[in-house]
Amino acid sequence: MNKTTVKPKYKLFTPGPVQVPAYILRELSAKLVYHREEAFGDIYASVRKGLQKLLMTKNEVYVLTASGTGAMETAVANLVSPQDKVLAVIAGKFGERWRELCIRFGAYVDSLTRPYGESVPPIEIERRLLATDTIKCVFTTLTETSTGALNDVKAFGEICHRLNRILVVDAVAGIGADELRTDAWNVDVVVGGSQKALAVPPGLSFISLSERAWEMVAETKRTRYYFDLRAYRRFAAKGQTPWTPAISLYYGLDAALKQITKTGVVKYWKSHEQMAEFVRSSIRRLGLELFPEKPSNALTVIRMPAGVDGSKLVEACKKEGFLFANGQANLRGKIVRIGHMGPISKALMRRALLCFRKHFLKAAGRAS
Amino acid sequence: MNKTTVKPKYKLFTPGPVQVPAYILRELSAKLVYHREEAFGDIYASVRKGLQKLLMTKNEVYVLTASGTGAMETAVANLVSPQDKVLAVIAGKFGERWRELCIRFGAYVDSLTRPYGESVPPIEIERRLLATDTIKCVFTTLTETSTGALNDVKAFGEICHRLNRILVVDAVAGIGADELRTDAWNVDVVVGGSQKALAVPPGLSFISLSERAWEMVAETKRTRYYFDLRAYRRFAAKGQTPWTPAISLYYGLDAALKQITKTGVVKYWKSHEQMAEFVRSSIRRLGLELFPEKPSNALTVIRMPAGVDGSKLVEACKKEGFLFANGQANLRGKIVRIGHMGPISKALMRRALLCFRKHFLKAAGRAS
Repeated sequence: MNKTTVKPKYKLFTPGPVQVPAYILRELSAKLVYHREEAFGDIYASVRKGLQKLLMTKNEVYVLTASGTGAMETAVANLVSPQDKVLAVIAGKFGERWRELCIRFGAYVDSLTRPYGESVPPIEIERRLLATDTIKCVFTTLTETSTGALNDVKAFGEICHRLNRILVVDAVAGIGADELRTDAWNVDVVVGGSQKALAVPPGLSFISLSERAWEMVAETKRTRYYFDLRAYRRFAAKGQTPWTPAISLYYGLDAALKQITKTGVVKYWKSHEQMAEFVRSSIRRLGLELFPEKPSNALTVIRMPAGVDGSKLVEACKKEGFLFANGQANLRGKIVRIGHMGPISKALMRRALLCFRKHFLKAAGRAS
Repeated sequence: MNKTTVKPKYKLFTPGPVQVPAYILRELSAKLVYHREEAFGDIYASVRKGLQKLLMTKNEVYVLTASGTGAMETAVANLVSPQDKVLAVIAGKFGERWRELCIRFGAYVDSLTRPYGESVPPIEIERRLLATDTIKCVFTTLTETSTGALNDVKAFGEICHRLNRILVVDAVAGIGADELRTDAWNVDVVVGGSQKALAVPPGLSFISLSERAWEMVAETKRTRYYFDLRAYRRFAAKGQTPWTPAISLYYGLDAALKQITKTGVVKYWKSHEQMAEFVRSSIRRLGLELFPEKPSNALTVIRMPAGVDGSKLVEACKKEGFLFANGQANLRGKIVRIGHMGPISKALMRRALLCFRKHFLKAAGRAS
C-alpha cells in the first residue's frame, strides 16, 4: 500500500472527496472481471442491493460511470421535456446547478431562492405549487455543500406527494450522513455519488426513481444517450451496464456499502450526528458562528469574523497536513468548510480542529 | 496486493478492458489528492502531456470521467447541431454507434456501410463527399472492435482535409496499438479510452480537437452540460476538470502514459504488431481464417468454421482461466475475438493460444 507514486501531503477534510479508508483503497487494486460476464453481474447486484438499503427504497438503483453532476444531468435529461415547467429550490451552488441544468435542457424554470446559508421553508414550496398547477417537477438539495445547510426533505416530500408533483433530490453530499428515507418520505428521484459519506474515490454516481417518475421518463422528449435511463434499466435486468463501467470503483463501492449496511444505516447517520456535534461544539467554544441556520451532519461551515481571511486559514492548515475547503465564489475567504462525511476518527478530527484553532487564534490576533 | 476481495478466475484476453499490469493497479490504491488543488493540477498536466505524445498532437487533450461512449457523445454533442448533415462510416458495431448517436442528436445522417469484417475503401468516402457538399463532419472508426478490422484513417484524413470536412475518429480500441498520427494525418477530432491499449481500468476517456473543430464547437446549437467541451477547456486552463474527476483512475492513467512514452509510442505500436503477427500466425497454422480482411494489431478476430460453436469455445477456455470474447449480436458463436491490446507477455499469450488450440481441435473433432 505504500509503494504508490502519489503521496498527498495532507489528509482530506474537504466536503467530498473525503479521506478514503485503507480497506476501500485496497479493493481498487483488485484484478478486473469482465463487465459482460456474470462475475461483474454479481458485484453490480450486490452494489444495487446495498444502495437500496442506504437509500431506504424498494426501487431499483442504477450506477453511472460519471460524477454527481452526471447523475443530476441524468435526472433532468430523462424527466424534463423542452418547455416543461419545473421548480428549482435554491439556497446555494448546487441548487443553482439544478436551475442551470433545467434551463440548458429547455425547461421553463421557476426559482424559489433563499440567501446562501438558509434552508428553504417547506411552506414556500407549497405556496408556489398551489399557485402554479403546471409545475411537474421540483428539484432540490438535501445537503447544500456550498453552505452546509440541510433542507427539510421530509416535509418537501409530503407536500409534493399531496399535490401530485415529482420530487427530485440531490443527495450527493448528504446521503449516508444526513437522514433520508426515500420511500417513506415520498422522494421520487434521488441522486448520489461515491465520494462523499460512502468514502469511495470519485467516479461513480447513482440514481433511483419511483414508478411515478418512470412513467414520466417514458414520455420525455429529450435527446439522451450516455445518460439514457431506459438503457440502464434494460441492461440492469441482465446484471450489466449499457456502457463499460469503472469496474475498480465498483469494488470500492461494494466494500463501502457492505460495511455501512453491516453497521446499519441509522447507526451510520447517528455516528455522523455525533461527529458533527463534536465539531460544532468545538467551533462554538472558539466563539465562532456557524454559517447555515440549520446545519447538515455531513460538513460544518464556519463564518469567519471580520478581519479573518478564511483562505489564509485554509492554506496554513494545509501546510500542517489538514485540508479544509474554502468558500466558493462570493464566499471565498468568508467561510471555512470542514467535511466530516467519511468514517473519520474522533482522534484525527481533534487534531484537525486543534490545528484550525491555532491558526484561527493567530489570525484573530488572540493568544493560543 | 493479494488481500482484495475480488479474485477473478480468469485472465482477460477480451478486447477491452484488458489485463491491467500490477504497477498500474497499485497506483489506484494511492490516497486521494483534492481535485481543486495544485497536486491534482500537476497530475492532470502530466496526463494531458502524455496523451498529446500518444496521440501525436499539439492540440490540448481533455479527460472525461466516463467510458468511451461518453467521449463519443462528447464529440457529437459538441459538433453536431440539429439538422446538420453528417457522414457515418460503418463496418461494425462501433461505426453503428456513431450513426445512432448522430441520429439521436438530430443530425441528418448519410451512412457509408460495408459488411462486417471489411474496411471502408477511402475512395468511397471521397465519392460521397464530392456528391454531397453539405456534409460537415465524417465520423469513423480506427479499429472496429466488433470485427477486428482496421480502417485507413491516414487516407480518410487526406480526403477530408482536401475537401474541407471535419474528420472525427473513434480510436478507443486502437490508440496505442494501431498507428495513428493525429496531426500529421489531419484528424480533427480523436476520442479514446483508458481500458484498451493503455491497460488502465475503465472509467476515463479522452478527446482532442483541432482548431478547425473548435470553431465548429463554438457554433453548435445543442444542449450539453456534463459533456460540454467549453467547460472542459475553461477548467483545463487552471489545471482542473469542471466536475469531480475519478482521481484514482488518473493515477493509473498517468503511470501507464509515463511507461508508454518512456518506451516510445512507435515502439509500443511495433510491440503490438509483433504480438498480433504471433497470434495471427498461430491461428493460421490451425488452418483457421481471420475474420477481417485488413486486421488491426489490437485484437485478432477468428472466423469459426461450420460446425464449431465459438460460444462454447469461449466458455471452455474461460474455465481454464483464459477469457476471450464472443461475437456480438449476429456474430455470436460465429467468431472468437482475442484481445492483445495491453502489455501482455508472449509466454502468457502462448499459453492462452494453446488452450484455444486444444478446445478448437476438440470441437472440430480433430485430435489435439
